[in-house]
Amino acid sequence: MREVVVIGCGMTKFGELWKMSLRDIFVEAALKAIDDAGVDHIDSMYVGAMTPGLFVGQEHIGALMADYLGVAPVPAMRVESACCSGGMAMRTGFFEIASGYSDIVLVGGVEKMNDGADVTYALATAADQEYEVYQGVTFPGLYALIARAHMHRYGTTREQLAAVSVKNHHNGALNPNAQFPKEVTIDQVINATLVADPLTVLDSSPVSDGAACVILASADMVKKSKAAPVMIIGSGAATDAIALHSREDITALKAVKLSGEAAYKMAGVKPADIDLAEVHDCFTIAELCIIEELGFTEKGKGGLFTEQGNTALNGKIPVNTSGGLKSKGHPVGATGIAQVVEVVEQLRGSAGKRQVEKAQIGLTQNMGGSGASSVVHIFKI
Amino acid sequence: MREVVVIGCGMTKFGELWKMSLRDIFVEAALKAIDDAGVDHIDSMYVGAMTPGLFVGQEHIGALMADYLGVAPVPAMRVESACCSGGMAMRTGFFEIASGYSDIVLVGGVEKMNDGADVTYALATAADQEYEVYQGVTFPGLYALIARAHMHRYGTTREQLAAVSVKNHHNGALNPNAQFPKEVTIDQVINATLVADPLTVLDSSPVSDGAACVILASADMVKKSKAAPVMIIGSGAATDAIALHSREDITALKAVKLSGEAAYKMAGVKPADIDLAEVHDCFTIAELCIIEELGFTEKGKGGLFTEQGNTALNGKIPVNTSGGLKSKGHPVGATGIAQVVEVVEQLRGSAGKRQVEKAQIGLTQNMGGSGASSVVHIFKI
Repeated sequence: MREVVVIGCGMTKFGELWKMSLRDIFVEAALKAIDDAGVDHIDSMYVGAMTPGLFVGQEHIGALMADYLGVAPVPAMRVESACCSGGMAMRTGFFEIASGYSDIVLVGGVEKMNDGADVTYALATAADQEYEVYQGVTFPGLYALIARAHMHRYGTTREQLAAVSVKNHHNGALNPNAQFPKEVTIDQVINATLVADPLTVLDSSPVSDGAACVILASADMVKKSKAAPVMIIGSGAATDAIALHSREDITALKAVKLSGEAAYKMAGVKPADIDLAEVHDCFTIAELCIIEELGFTEKGKGGLFTEQGNTALNGKIPVNTSGGLKSKGHPVGATGIAQVVEVVEQLRGSAGKRQVEKAQIGLTQNMGGSGASSVVHIFKI
Repeated sequence: MREVVVIGCGMTKFGELWKMSLRDIFVEAALKAIDDAGVDHIDSMYVGAMTPGLFVGQEHIGALMADYLGVAPVPAMRVESACCSGGMAMRTGFFEIASGYSDIVLVGGVEKMNDGADVTYALATAADQEYEVYQGVTFPGLYALIARAHMHRYGTTREQLAAVSVKNHHNGALNPNAQFPKEVTIDQVINATLVADPLTVLDSSPVSDGAACVILASADMVKKSKAAPVMIIGSGAATDAIALHSREDITALKAVKLSGEAAYKMAGVKPADIDLAEVHDCFTIAELCIIEELGFTEKGKGGLFTEQGNTALNGKIPVNTSGGLKSKGHPVGATGIAQVVEVVEQLRGSAGKRQVEKAQIGLTQNMGGSGASSVVHIFKI
């Protein structure tokens, strides 16, 4: 396999972008990434998006974005894997360059959720339509079930869940692209509007518009250029039963564990080697389960580990330095790429007030649905 | 790049599959392909589908299908590029193996269109939502515009358009998996219900349920096995302006031309070397434009070329030996893979009454929307 590097990245501010349509949002992020990389062409592009068909009545957005970005006739396609559409798009771009077929590929993610669609219904199409959605369950409910089981089995407390939100909002307050760049307290999280017991609105990622893009290139090609490339040293993906009720243990996110193991193996690193991680905190409980499955702490200890400050900016393993989905926002298809943007900025040392000192190896973990798909990438500078 | 081969294929009958849900249809085709290949595992899978979200309220079908096929935790994702979602999925599977990351990949396509959704609206999301769909135009209308322009500029006749349908229905009548396996006459096509002048219902591909799957493998690995592999010797893709009104010439399908040229170049072959082709005849006019853009005949001569029998089963270059989208059916996401299934069967010499004699090199061309994306693959035995 040829070595693949990230040579540029860009993203929009996440939030309610009422004055921009789906295509405007994507093109803004793409132009920033192209400018950052300093390339004068791309060989092909991939766009991660969960459900532009349900959100804004538009499919075929690979070709649409190539057209509006002004790069047609380059090949373009969309990749979908619910909330990890962006992370999976990374993987396809990575394979295309690794194969030797292309040298420079744009990989982006985008979603416009604030445009009048029934967001709860649209997101629920990531669950099992015939067995879960049909019964009326939606994602806050599914994650609430996981949270209750985790509290029951491992003694995780309501405060420990809230500690994830407090940490991520602290980081997001330092991120100019965050949708909700403000601090929150444990009390505020616990006493916010209840969404699905025990999860409140401050345990939940918001409804967001936004896009993020990166430019991937073959390492050989970049050796001749002035850009400071970030190497992709590991890529792992896995799936699990789509319906929560089909899993042996609903507190175990098997796809996260296996995608992490595959990425660690390919990269030749272990959890202790990771300097920072961006993970899929769609709900606070998700971050706790994920840091356990990725091996940053033992199974069941995620709450305590977080409460003790180990995942804070200055902790043992900083997690979601960008503010995560919780504070930065979660335009579904864009999330997996925005995670890469944060890790690249951290490894380049250009993360400003969020900068993790001496960061050399970073990890991104992006997840679909209640964990039926997960993709992990590991980066090194 | 590592060489990639097709070692197995399978598909469902296309049609109105009322007794099967989306997942049932896919699993049937996938099991047939796995059985045909004789493999005991797969490393990953890709599912092409245009809009299961709008058709049946289900996104995240990569993970869903991996789960229901019983192959989770293998990595799985969906690929979308409107009506060429299947062909683009082929390309991603091809890259994954060519890169050396995986050895055996299942690539499938599926769509369930007969399930109560507003099919015309769902399909229209492949056009430009803000500039075309908003004005009320749908695909029969867009292709009717292309047909009228082609007739005006090149003298293409109503009978020549009908000749495409007559030929494809003749071939489809020989295909046990076809949705409408019956002969039609020129008069029947011309006098059928008008959909969008000059196109009648017999110029138009039907609304279909169905799935098709292939198993791809690295050529190195297969040298040790007993399967008769079909080599993928060329892959090309391209995009064009998504909206018809943004193109210099609406009778020119630039993405088809460029995707064909890229595939020919990679394969080291020219149009005259192709023994048979499966192309995207969503409407009769599309097949005429495509055979021109792929270089089987001169620009503007597609009608005459077809009328003279050059694209018939026993013609100079048999086109749509399977019956094409017109007679075999067009479950959108499945079409690009079903084309590969037909070419593989022809190259293996197992196409029964549709067999093209001494077929050694076959081509598939799959298209999205009114031609904003196109993907071509070339196969050799």
